[in-house]
Amino acid sequence: MGLWLEQGKLSLREDLPIPSPKEGEALIRLLSAGICSTDHHLAAGMYDYEGILGHEFVGQVEKGPEDLIGKRVVGEINLPCGKCELCHANLSRHCKNRTVLGILKQPGAFAEYLTLPTDNLHLVPDSVSDEDAVFTEPIAAALEILEQIQIQPTQRVIVVGDGKLGQLISQVLNLTGCDLLVLGRHEKKLSHLERLGIRTTTNTDLDGRTFDKSVECTGNSAGFEIARTALKPTGTLVLKSTYPGKLNIDATFLTVDEITIVGSRCGPFAPALNLIQNSKIDLSYLKEKTYPLKSALDAFDYSKQKGVLKVLLKA
Amino acid sequence: MGLWLEQGKLSLREDLPIPSPKEGEALIRLLSAGICSTDHHLAAGMYDYEGILGHEFVGQVEKGPEDLIGKRVVGEINLPCGKCELCHANLSRHCKNRTVLGILKQPGAFAEYLTLPTDNLHLVPDSVSDEDAVFTEPIAAALEILEQIQIQPTQRVIVVGDGKLGQLISQVLNLTGCDLLVLGRHEKKLSHLERLGIRTTTNTDLDGRTFDKSVECTGNSAGFEIARTALKPTGTLVLKSTYPGKLNIDATFLTVDEITIVGSRCGPFAPALNLIQNSKIDLSYLKEKTYPLKSALDAFDYSKQKGVLKVLLKA
Repeated sequence: MGLWLEQGKLSLREDLPIPSPKEGEALIRLLSAGICSTDHHLAAGMYDYEGILGHEFVGQVEKGPEDLIGKRVVGEINLPCGKCELCHANLSRHCKNRTVLGILKQPGAFAEYLTLPTDNLHLVPDSVSDEDAVFTEPIAAALEILEQIQIQPTQRVIVVGDGKLGQLISQVLNLTGCDLLVLGRHEKKLSHLERLGIRTTTNTDLDGRTFDKSVECTGNSAGFEIARTALKPTGTLVLKSTYPGKLNIDATFLTVDEITIVGSRCGPFAPALNLIQNSKIDLSYLKEKTYPLKSALDAFDYSKQKGVLKVLLKA
Repeated sequence: MGLWLEQGKLSLREDLPIPSPKEGEALIRLLSAGICSTDHHLAAGMYDYEGILGHEFVGQVEKGPEDLIGKRVVGEINLPCGKCELCHANLSRHCKNRTVLGILKQPGAFAEYLTLPTDNLHLVPDSVSDEDAVFTEPIAAALEILEQIQIQPTQRVIVVGDGKLGQLISQVLNLTGCDLLVLGRHEKKLSHLERLGIRTTTNTDLDGRTFDKSVECTGNSAGFEIARTALKPTGTLVLKSTYPGKLNIDATFLTVDEITIVGSRCGPFAPALNLIQNSKIDLSYLKEKTYPLKSALDAFDYSKQKGVLKVLLKA
């Protein structure tokens, strides 16, 4: 059983065979999975993908190396070829021949079983619950920002967007001790961050260009514009969300103010698991609702609603 | 006498008074000056400036602190207020109240006399000729790239554009020992770089995305597109030229390939003078023609022609 995307239509398929792991791969029985905005983009036809959706998951290894059997694992979503120059240059997440779990030519995690190369797997510590482990992938994506740029404790940073990813990014960046502000549209979502001691606002009039770094995670050009104009000269804008369209950027502004734009995608799993294990990220309020896998279509519909945070599937 | 821009029209004005230096400023008698593409952009109305053009110069101090009198100087072009938060944050080149020599509310250098704050001045070593000293400003702009990003000796770097600034950038980046390629349109201009041991090409079909860093200095969107598509994932594009219009950027490309774009403007004068003094940059072929100041209009016309490198004015 799995959530299948074909020609822009989602369906729950009962006829899916248990996949056979190839050499170097493990067969994983799904325990829990999370629905991400990218899944909605995929369903809306933003990318050219057909098959089982899903890339945020935790599961139990059923076939593979002996030391992994029965263990709970999370899995990195990029499957590299291991042979191209990008793989050799330690850029396997950017492998030109890669497939991507539930996104590009690789059946995803919204199913009873999936396969992944064992190199992609990370053991989940016993103290981490299934539901928390599902957040490893998006927390890794948030941590990627700190792999790419240095956020100094004395710097002013603004996160634009209070959705699922914005929440995790805000919590992760708040660990740096920087002077953080989160700009969002939803008082309720922002209130969670306020409770965690993170300053928030719904006011898009930021009164000048005072931020050293901005992170855009709304996925729309209005959000980009706020993130851009919030920056002081020589500031850095991190582009965290994928955009459906093109960005119209004033290039003179970039040059004259020496602005840097950094595109940011997948990140490192090990430190993400560390943060979860050490309870550095409050995931409790993010888990909006859990559906059984067989109700994945309902879960998908529910997660599409405005203001809803993470919707989980349970196998 | 000076080259005056007003309502999009250039004229040689004979009626300009000798300016009076304010406190902290020096009166400088022009020795030599250089015409830059920005001067052409200004004349074409790209920015809102009226007055004496010119920002690349060397001159002799006539009034000011005693230890400067009679000395040859070059001058940084941004005049900061010294009071705003950007000045206090050591970002005075980005001062929000700044004026800019010959570009923004500050009479420029294409005149017999100019004034600048003494803080902006750098003494020119005796061994550096007037004509070479004029290149301090654009070499500093090229060096700014190395202030902003690290270019590792093992990296592949492409400079797109073989004009005046592209030539200096190519020579400066070649000092890093990196694997450098310069893409241009003019065999003759590229031949100078080839002679200096720098690999060049006119072929825009780069056969794959293999560069770690690219520097766009054509000032047109075709150049930007080449610089963008030359980059391997996680690569950095340095935007060195100001663009008349907007850039239409595929944001998904930025995010998915984790590309960084860095806007780059003015740079540090002291190391630029060092490089000139130590003959690390070959300026000989760049000096296309020298005109007396009174023929500045002819010089301006000549420098506008395709394929012409640096045109100098001599007072």
